[in-house]
Amino acid sequence: MTRDPDCVFCKIVAGKIPASVVLESDTALAFLDVGPLAEGHLLVIPREHYADLSAMPPEEAASMASLIPSLGRAARKVTGAEGFNVLVNEGRVAGQEVPHVHAHIIPRAVDDGLGYRWKPKQYAEGKAAELTGRYREALTGE
Amino acid sequence: MTRDPDCVFCKIVAGKIPASVVLESDTALAFLDVGPLAEGHLLVIPREHYADLSAMPPEEAASMASLIPSLGRAARKVTGAEGFNVLVNEGRVAGQEVPHVHAHIIPRAVDDGLGYRWKPKQYAEGKAAELTGRYREALTGE
Repeated sequence: MTRDPDCVFCKIVAGKIPASVVLESDTALAFLDVGPLAEGHLLVIPREHYADLSAMPPEEAASMASLIPSLGRAARKVTGAEGFNVLVNEGRVAGQEVPHVHAHIIPRAVDDGLGYRWKPKQYAEGKAAELTGRYREALTGE
Repeated sequence: MTRDPDCVFCKIVAGKIPASVVLESDTALAFLDVGPLAEGHLLVIPREHYADLSAMPPEEAASMASLIPSLGRAARKVTGAEGFNVLVNEGRVAGQEVPHVHAHIIPRAVDDGLGYRWKPKQYAEGKAAELTGRYREALTGE
């Protein structure tokens, strides 16, 4: 088990910092976020220390994600939410505050004041095809 | 393979609507979002039709998620992004527009104008313990 001695989530995994744990598996842990965006806001983390989602082995990401459907059902049941967001932020630019991979599960309600400052754009002619080619090349080169 | 004849993502899986596909697996598909929030914005969907993430079998959610680390690395490489958000919206209240599970991968850059209207709160005394108990009960009863 890789741990970072300065990582707050590694300390939770090791039981050195208390957390409101709701679900555990061999590879992952789910607990209440202490700074909730909404009542019942959960975090799911891998036990192993990975700073970034893009650095996780695919099977570790899969194992962590396998908990999310049942956590989502529980969030709906416990909070009465009509839906939820699952959010992983990679990098400070994306809002990541703790450098140990974590998925937020955020229960949502009508008029809860939460949401995004996001506006869809459109690709100029040929741009999507160019990007697709570059993605395929990047993914083949792995 | 379960398909919904009216679902735009099922039509993409079936090859009836074109899409800029960047990666495929036996169970999932990744392609450029046609209304990108940022250049290189990707969607990852299961081939099977599930309206909601919380209705997915855990192994299907896992299989879909296993593609995300390499897609995240590709997004960084292709777009030069310093990070990205992975986002799944469940329910209209959470911003879900197409009722076929999809994970957004949104490349992020400094001062890109994207972001959240989200403010962390704090639990009143005893509230976190109460919620934890209710979560555990909901997850045990599954």
